[in-house]
Amino acid sequence: MADSEGTTPTTSTPNSIRIVEVGPRDGLQNERVRLNPAERIRLIERLVDAGVREVEVGSFVHPRWIPQMAGTDEVLRGLHRQEGVAYWALVPNRRGLDNALEAGAEHVAVFVSSSETHNRRNLNRSIDESIENVREVVSDARQEGLTVRGYISTVFGCPWEGDIDFDRVLDIARELFAMGVAEISFGDTTGMGTPYQVRDGMTRALDAFGPERVALHLHDTRGLAVANALLAVEAGVTTLDASIGGMGGCPYAAGASGNVGTEDLVHLLHATGRNTGIRLEDLLGISRSLEDEHGATLRSRYHAYSRAGHS
Amino acid sequence: MADSEGTTPTTSTPNSIRIVEVGPRDGLQNERVRLNPAERIRLIERLVDAGVREVEVGSFVHPRWIPQMAGTDEVLRGLHRQEGVAYWALVPNRRGLDNALEAGAEHVAVFVSSSETHNRRNLNRSIDESIENVREVVSDARQEGLTVRGYISTVFGCPWEGDIDFDRVLDIARELFAMGVAEISFGDTTGMGTPYQVRDGMTRALDAFGPERVALHLHDTRGLAVANALLAVEAGVTTLDASIGGMGGCPYAAGASGNVGTEDLVHLLHATGRNTGIRLEDLLGISRSLEDEHGATLRSRYHAYSRAGHS
Repeated sequence: MADSEGTTPTTSTPNSIRIVEVGPRDGLQNERVRLNPAERIRLIERLVDAGVREVEVGSFVHPRWIPQMAGTDEVLRGLHRQEGVAYWALVPNRRGLDNALEAGAEHVAVFVSSSETHNRRNLNRSIDESIENVREVVSDARQEGLTVRGYISTVFGCPWEGDIDFDRVLDIARELFAMGVAEISFGDTTGMGTPYQVRDGMTRALDAFGPERVALHLHDTRGLAVANALLAVEAGVTTLDASIGGMGGCPYAAGASGNVGTEDLVHLLHATGRNTGIRLEDLLGISRSLEDEHGATLRSRYHAYSRAGHS
Repeated sequence: MADSEGTTPTTSTPNSIRIVEVGPRDGLQNERVRLNPAERIRLIERLVDAGVREVEVGSFVHPRWIPQMAGTDEVLRGLHRQEGVAYWALVPNRRGLDNALEAGAEHVAVFVSSSETHNRRNLNRSIDESIENVREVVSDARQEGLTVRGYISTVFGCPWEGDIDFDRVLDIARELFAMGVAEISFGDTTGMGTPYQVRDGMTRALDAFGPERVALHLHDTRGLAVANALLAVEAGVTTLDASIGGMGGCPYAAGASGNVGTEDLVHLLHATGRNTGIRLEDLLGISRSLEDEHGATLRSRYHAYSRAGHS
């Protein structure tokens, strides 16, 4: 199986794309399958061995809320960290940050929704209250010398509110950057984004903040993630989140496709003449292990193709 | 669930797209599930009720080779045909054409591969021999006043031969048009096509033959079908084949995704401001029946999303 089809890019858009692998956090936390900390460490190290240079390793949230993420401190401590690789940990609050610091985190992520209803359902508070909470966390994290990533959710639509005003999204982004966040990942949390909408939104974000501060986080809920990714990259986006095997997704639509699969995204990028530094063959091996050893149900297309005996 | 997200198209490309529904033939003939002629009639009539105006109803091939297509004569005879709808039947040879004529077919399709190896494996003869066979069938069909569609397979790559020379594809197309074929569906039979490759190939085909004679037949084997479709439509393609529920696919990669799902394609087109005349909600109901009543395993993304309780 050819990793890259040898196509030369026919656009003048960026040739090197940075993939932030979110499977070990955003993926696993929305799956039924449970990996213990040693298994999560193995997963992360295999992803890094495959060429991944940014990986979200877990979340410092109370295990009562997200049992899949119990032991993220062990994961972070047990990892054999490699030079040049960023290991991100999600910290929902000051206590999470303390635990992350204690476990030696150097890269942390905070989040807020751009939908008032989604934010309330997810965090039981208003967006403004969330932003004040995030402000404290970011400030403390920056004082400790950490690099902070911000997630903004539901930027291309919310299941409860429908369309989201992208001006509001950009306002929230400005607030996060003013706090000292290094980059923001704009999240199509439930896969409602459509190609021209994503292109237009990303163009506005790139114009406002520059490509080195803008990431795109896509879900394939309705089958548009790969097309959305292509148009975003053509518009100048250089950082994309993805989840190995397509793990994760929306807890409100169990059974639907989740995060865009890293295999699918890497295949798209290589097939359109872009570099990721990631070996697709190695990703397929990792996905196979997730299914065979851990019983995960994976949904990325390229993985299914590979399973059909063609890798 | 919003059928269309209200996005206005931001390109000047065609706004009306013609979908050729191939599920009842290309879909079913590659699935384990078997529908009897009465069930196939019901499927076809529901598709037409959903707004489909072109549907491939079956194949006149010996049931020894493709048992799923046994009784295509009954299907064609039993259908309540609607004004303005084209009911296509695949005819592999003169005998198939005779049977199609006897059953009252007005629209027939012929096929040839652009890969010598694929053609030999599929039809046990060379491309040139296939073309001579097709020439006889098309000539006779035209004399009977039928409209003929030509399929050319593996135009963006063959599992055995790799890359296919698109000059050769265009040469085969020219031969078919010279015989009197009305339109040609260019088939990415095993989903090897990539976005810029598909755009470039389709641009050449459109330049050579004009949009009213060019159709694109995509498979989602490696997850690129929706992105390929978007770039093809932006390049001016106005006819796309699709299969309800994503049924069908490559017999050489069982378990992988098959034909691009009609739901996924229609959602893409509506979400990018184009019309198909098809009601997505109705398609989802048909896919649900295929699963619930017939036990089909469907792979279109939008269907999976709909099954997750969001339709």
